[in-house]
Formats: sequence, structure tokens, C-alpha cells
Amino acid sequence: MPVLVLLRHGESLWNKLNLFTGWVDVPLSEKGIKEALKAGELLRGLRFDVIFTSELVRAIQTAMLAMAESGRVPVILHEGRMGEWGRIHGEDGKDFIPVIKSWHLNERYYGELQGWNKDRAREVFGEERVYLWRRSYDIAPPGGESLKDTAERTVPFFRERILPALEEGKNVLVSAHGNSLRSVVMHIEGLTKEEILRFNIPTGVPLVYDYANGELVRRGYLTEKGYDKDLGI
Amino acid sequence: MPVLVLLRHGESLWNKLNLFTGWVDVPLSEKGIKEALKAGELLRGLRFDVIFTSELVRAIQTAMLAMAESGRVPVILHEGRMGEWGRIHGEDGKDFIPVIKSWHLNERYYGELQGWNKDRAREVFGEERVYLWRRSYDIAPPGGESLKDTAERTVPFFRERILPALEEGKNVLVSAHGNSLRSVVMHIEGLTKEEILRFNIPTGVPLVYDYANGELVRRGYLTEKGYDKDLGI
Repeated sequence: MPVLVLLRHGESLWNKLNLFTGWVDVPLSEKGIKEALKAGELLRGLRFDVIFTSELVRAIQTAMLAMAESGRVPVILHEGRMGEWGRIHGEDGKDFIPVIKSWHLNERYYGELQGWNKDRAREVFGEERVYLWRRSYDIAPPGGESLKDTAERTVPFFRERILPALEEGKNVLVSAHGNSLRSVVMHIEGLTKEEILRFNIPTGVPLVYDYANGELVRRGYLTEKGYDKDLGI
Repeated sequence: MPVLVLLRHGESLWNKLNLFTGWVDVPLSEKGIKEALKAGELLRGLRFDVIFTSELVRAIQTAMLAMAESGRVPVILHEGRMGEWGRIHGEDGKDFIPVIKSWHLNERYYGELQGWNKDRAREVFGEERVYLWRRSYDIAPPGGESLKDTAERTVPFFRERILPALEEGKNVLVSAHGNSLRSVVMHIEGLTKEEILRFNIPTGVPLVYDYANGELVRRGYLTEKGYDKDLGI
């Protein structure tokens, strides 16, 4: 039975500085690196056939670090400019996990908020407005995306690229971001606008779904003690 | 006085499997991750103003891991599609190190050899031919690049993008590959074809140059014991 695993990247250097990040392409902090390696240990028992990541380095790093000791080799595909780029000729290199990067899985685009300290933004724009930008479903910050806007690019990608892989019986790992993954979970689990606002995937904790008869059923968060349906969240 | 640091990525999962890699985009192994973090510790005393990497994940990972605890934040620029991609608006996010990715710094393209186990290649094509493909200056493997071909894309990039940054007084980190860096060193130090064939940069050991009066002078390899001119190589 194929599985779908959603993995939210660990702490980035801007999370650490409490800045709105969005599409600003900052790497993991040391803590984030450890979270990714830890996620890799937890995932050791699953054998992935394909990996999807956003085009942002913190999600790519997370997937690559998690796979470093998995016993299999992820290879990032450079779609659209394959031609000779990265073509594998020798048979010895044929056993690999394709990694597909797409901006469709990028974090919510935060527009004018990108690069603002979150506390300072609250001082300047007001507590309530910043709360609405961060936690409402369809209110976008200036020049940026609402969660609804994000879903309009993540969900079609999920339907057209990720679901077909599951239908082919493949185990799929998706390494992405707090909001891009929330929009995917909302779609998978049919959550309401209100439910998704309270829903928050912890960083570095794999969220596992079983795929059977065309449906995805949540197995739970994968922890050291096994699967936990909701981590008490 | 500005410095130029050349950093060769650590062990990748294909180095570990003894496969010809070239442009196949495989990540670092656990050992390679440790090498990158170690390089980061060594580099802590230098303050970089700009980072150049290849477009291959093992070089990008190396730079990002090395910088994770540097106290400054590298931000990968997505040139050619900037527009709104990753624009930083808030002043709090303005202190960052730009990271420029370019295929010009990619590893030597190994053509038909990519994915071959090195020992098996020797059995099939003969010891001498494989030696020539790996170590001659201008003999290319089928469909691939010679070191000379590699230099024809790395050196113009070095002259047009990296050197001007040094001229502006910037400290520059270049994270790349065994052969792409050898071709750059050959250019910087004016080595002959014979000299460059014996020249091999160790993985994860920063090679530091001082830039003064339009010239680059090798300070040496940066080790735990300080600078070492040639590591006895």
C-alpha cells in the first residue's frame, strides 16, 4: 500500500531571526539541520520511489539531509533543460530516487512582508492585521498570497503530479513548508477554512498517509514512539 | 585586503559508491555533511560578502552547511526570474550574503561515463583510457568535457563575475567541484597542463587567496593549525 509523507522543513536562519520569509531563499540553521537528520532516522523504514520538493533551499536541504543515510540515492532532476543535463548512462547509477523540484510547492509568498521582523510588523501594522495576514484563509498581505492563493497553485500540482505517482503504487515524500503543506492537507482531508487555520504541522515530524482505493487516510505523525494520529494538536 | 576562498564539496553519495558523477545531481553523504560543517567552523573568522556555487546540490549544500553557524545569512538569488521571486522588502532582512548559482561552476561534464562505476569502467574501457579521461588535460570522454572544455566555461565566469567582486573589495567564497575548481586554480596560478594534472584540492579544506594590486596570491589551505601553503601535496 503506497504511502504519502509530508515533511515540513526545520528551522531556517530567518525563522531563528523571527523574520517573514516567504520566497526569500534562506538555508537551514544548525537546529534545522539536526531536525532534518532526525527526520531521516525516523523515515529509515520507508522506501521512497519519488521525492517532491519546493524550489527553496531549506526544503531541498531537508529532503537531502533526511535521505543521506537512507541507503538509496536521491537525484535531483532538472526538468525543462534535461537534454544532456545530468543524464545517467552507466547501469550502476540506475538505482536512484528521482527528486522533482517545483515552485508550486514553495512557501506562501509573503509580498511586502518579506524581510520584516514579525514583532516589528505587529508594531507598525497592528497586532490584528498581522494576525489576519498570518492566519486568515483569504486575506493576503500587500503584494503577497493568501493561503487560498497558495492552494490555487499547490493543489493542482498535487492532483497532477503527486497523486498519479501514488496511483502508480509509488511511495512519495514531499518536502515543503508550513503553509504550502497546510494547503495540501486541507485538500486531502477536506478541512474547512476554520479547521485549517488551527492546523499546524510541526517542523521535521513526518506526517504519513496511506493511499488505498483512491483515498488518502492519515496514519499519523511518525515519532520515535511510532505513529501518533494528531500529536495532541 | 579581500580574500578568495575555494571550497570543494565533501563526499557525495556517488563518490561513496565510486561512480562517475559529473552533472548528475546527487547530494552529500553523511561524511560529506560533516566535512561541510567542519569547513564552516574553519571559515568562521572570515566574513564573506558574496558566495558563488555551482547549480549542483552537493556544492550548494556545502556552502549552506558551512554558513549555518557563521552568524550571517546567505540568501540564494534566483537570477533571470527575480521579478517578485524572493524580493526582500523589510529592512530587518537586508543584512545577508548574496549567493549566486551558476552552471558555469558545475563539475566537469562526464558524458557517457556518468553513472558508471569507476572500476567497471576500467575493466570495460581499459585502465589507460580511463586514466586519460580522468587525468589528461584535453582528452574528453565520449559525449563529455575535457578539463580544457571545463576551463572554457569556468574561466570566463571567473573573470566576468568573481574577479569584479574581489576588485570591489569583497570577500568571496566559491563552493564547487574537484575539476571546476582545478580549472580555476590553473588560471589563477598560471599552472601548466602538466602541473594541473598533479594538482588536487582536498574536499572540505578551504583554499585561501589574498587579492592585492590586481593579483591573487595563495595564502594556503586553511586547517585547524592555521594556513598551510600546500598540505604537502
